[in-house]
Amino acid sequence: MPDTPVTPTIEQFGRRWRAGDISAATVTETCLAAIEARNDALNAFITVMGDEARRQAAEADRERAAGRDRGPLHGVPIAIKDLIDIKGVPTTAASRVREGHISSADAPVIAHLRNAGAVLIGKTNLHEFAYGTTSEDSAFGAVRNPHDPSRTPGGSSGGSAAAIVAGMAVAALGSDTGGSIRIPAAACGLVGLKPTYDEVSAAGVVPLARSFDHVGPLARTVMDAWLVHEVLTGVSVPQGIGAASLKGMTFGVPDSYFCEVMEPDVRARYDASVRALQEAGAAVQQVEIPHAALTAAVYIHIHATEGSEYHARMLERVPERYTPVVRRRLEMGRYILSEDYVRAQNARRVLVREVDAALGERAALLLPTMPIAAPPIGAETVSIEGRDEQVRALMLRCTQLFNVTGHPAIAMPCGVTGGGMPCSLQLVGRRGKTHALARIALAVEAAIG
Amino acid sequence: MPDTPVTPTIEQFGRRWRAGDISAATVTETCLAAIEARNDALNAFITVMGDEARRQAAEADRERAAGRDRGPLHGVPIAIKDLIDIKGVPTTAASRVREGHISSADAPVIAHLRNAGAVLIGKTNLHEFAYGTTSEDSAFGAVRNPHDPSRTPGGSSGGSAAAIVAGMAVAALGSDTGGSIRIPAAACGLVGLKPTYDEVSAAGVVPLARSFDHVGPLARTVMDAWLVHEVLTGVSVPQGIGAASLKGMTFGVPDSYFCEVMEPDVRARYDASVRALQEAGAAVQQVEIPHAALTAAVYIHIHATEGSEYHARMLERVPERYTPVVRRRLEMGRYILSEDYVRAQNARRVLVREVDAALGERAALLLPTMPIAAPPIGAETVSIEGRDEQVRALMLRCTQLFNVTGHPAIAMPCGVTGGGMPCSLQLVGRRGKTHALARIALAVEAAIG
Repeated sequence: MPDTPVTPTIEQFGRRWRAGDISAATVTETCLAAIEARNDALNAFITVMGDEARRQAAEADRERAAGRDRGPLHGVPIAIKDLIDIKGVPTTAASRVREGHISSADAPVIAHLRNAGAVLIGKTNLHEFAYGTTSEDSAFGAVRNPHDPSRTPGGSSGGSAAAIVAGMAVAALGSDTGGSIRIPAAACGLVGLKPTYDEVSAAGVVPLARSFDHVGPLARTVMDAWLVHEVLTGVSVPQGIGAASLKGMTFGVPDSYFCEVMEPDVRARYDASVRALQEAGAAVQQVEIPHAALTAAVYIHIHATEGSEYHARMLERVPERYTPVVRRRLEMGRYILSEDYVRAQNARRVLVREVDAALGERAALLLPTMPIAAPPIGAETVSIEGRDEQVRALMLRCTQLFNVTGHPAIAMPCGVTGGGMPCSLQLVGRRGKTHALARIALAVEAAIG
Repeated sequence: MPDTPVTPTIEQFGRRWRAGDISAATVTETCLAAIEARNDALNAFITVMGDEARRQAAEADRERAAGRDRGPLHGVPIAIKDLIDIKGVPTTAASRVREGHISSADAPVIAHLRNAGAVLIGKTNLHEFAYGTTSEDSAFGAVRNPHDPSRTPGGSSGGSAAAIVAGMAVAALGSDTGGSIRIPAAACGLVGLKPTYDEVSAAGVVPLARSFDHVGPLARTVMDAWLVHEVLTGVSVPQGIGAASLKGMTFGVPDSYFCEVMEPDVRARYDASVRALQEAGAAVQQVEIPHAALTAAVYIHIHATEGSEYHARMLERVPERYTPVVRRRLEMGRYILSEDYVRAQNARRVLVREVDAALGERAALLLPTMPIAAPPIGAETVSIEGRDEQVRALMLRCTQLFNVTGHPAIAMPCGVTGGGMPCSLQLVGRRGKTHALARIALAVEAAIG
């Protein structure tokens, strides 16, 4: 399986490019060649922007030659989830509902990437309208996991994750409404960063549930993810981060809910990561989020309501254009009572307070990103220690709370199962303190190697 | 009709008290005597706190004698809408549903009044749970308008307004979810101030619709209302305000919707007030709020949903304890779909932008508070120029938009109809700029005198 990246990280590219060892044109051609070779099998891209990417790469090389340096993303091929508007390009949302759409303007995050000199390599496949965790319900076919094409790459930003793993892009943008950046990062062995709610503009991005929608990066390292995130917030030149010191740092582990049901191999990798942090000098304390088990109920009432509200007219006019699974989910959302929506919004405030309290003075919360490795495409259940468990509920179980509460969260690889599938650790930081979280994540990444 | 106030304004009392011409005990006894004489007829108070008020008044007089001055509200008898918690006193919300309730703590606004040295004279009657504009559906009987007891004093803070007019209190607290401070102020010829949303704490106040609930004062003058409002925001000693200059000031008048249906006498008083402002040197410009006519639809979906969510359990357990009208309104709210609630919240953001745009660089918006004078108790419709119009819709028509948008608004008297019933002018200011609005209102009050 050719899943060893053939592209450098953003940091590696930057060093070599500024040393004159590699051109943006070269790395862009490498990505385009990987797309050419494997996209039919993986369904990672919906739209490949080859000509435009070549033009942008050549321009970056010219600028560098002329002494102009736009910072770390200059000349870097980045893939864009096809839910985000790029002027003059269709935003399909992986749905036939959007047939004929051409974006009239760049989303603010795209404008920021252009200012940073990034190369926009193309638009990636996703779960239709981001309404799913597996990227299998798409008008453009199921995205496949480059580590094992019989398995899902996670979702909804599955194409963005698969593109990086397959060397089709150096980094990618995703969106995360219940885990849609972190779940594919976990399933594909990447870093995925969901910032604090409302820190990055979601304008020009097809909404799923406005209360929960976040835009953020997928990348191969914490530093890469941070560099893209900085640009998305609109800073002109990203500054990078230095690692925090783990010595004397305290992590809160809310195990009682988040580690209740786990695949044994995934649990073993998670436990080993926690031990590695302790060996590096960090303390680990059990913490409680008393109403964590209500998260799914709170989530679904808000998520389904807002999703269905956005889609209501299209569901009435062109229901047959949706994939059957996503259509059913959207239609069910139309029967929720407003009283239950408001009750969920009230409960949400309780959960925010509980996560704040679990953090307390601690550096971050530490928990798995996903209690299972990437499941087979089409699987509705997986068997864990003899019990059948719902795939969708498990995939969302550890991530969706932080969409409900808006806390920043980062997923990072922490080894592989016996079958070679990636496992993932999640860190959750204080609201508004994504920078502090990223510094901690950089140290954790080094400690768990 | 003995509706000439026998109590001084806050300003008048303060001057005389500090000059040694009157005691807090005296003005408190005057109020208690008025309650004794007329409360059976008017139903303004649910709970009279005579002993406690006498104790507080004596304490204020002792403090003044000892040289301690707590500022403008020191020694001033203030009535409290019986939706607001006073420790050790029932909060009935004018409902049998609350039988047996005793507040365990002061609401923050009550704590602020105590710190300012105010005398809490009692708890005033209201439309049950504030769910109505006429104060006629109450477990304690309909409140009556002191100007004409066959008419409503407006609502839901009808008891607070009637108490001031009848000399039972110098000022009063109300709450305003669709106009519940401004409507009784208009119906009774008082000043009513609804501040910017979230400027005054609504904790310890039985909620109606949290998105729209505001706490504020009713009083006889703009200055009095402002002084109470300042204390409610938590400032230790209110500073008062100086009048703005009307010369060269520009008002926006959104007449096309708000003046479409009006009683001729009320329109005449409104038009005369606008002319008086022009004569005082102010300019008046027509402005448009393009979706103003959608306000009622946006309002009802949010208001009814949030009201019913709060009452859901009580509606299931003790439905027979509600008055029939309020019970029916609350039960209808339980059938709203969440998609419609979210759509209304989205439309709300449009209305906020439109009111901001109508304000533009202008000093304030100028419109009627109520297109009719206080209607007869029990009337469901009134006839205007030969057409039957719904009383409830008309009473809310000019006020509810600013609950939807959160802009500060002040109602003030602008003369009386041929039948002697008060008419009212409304000024609307910028969000967060209640102080600037009050300064303008002080100048307008002087100009329309």
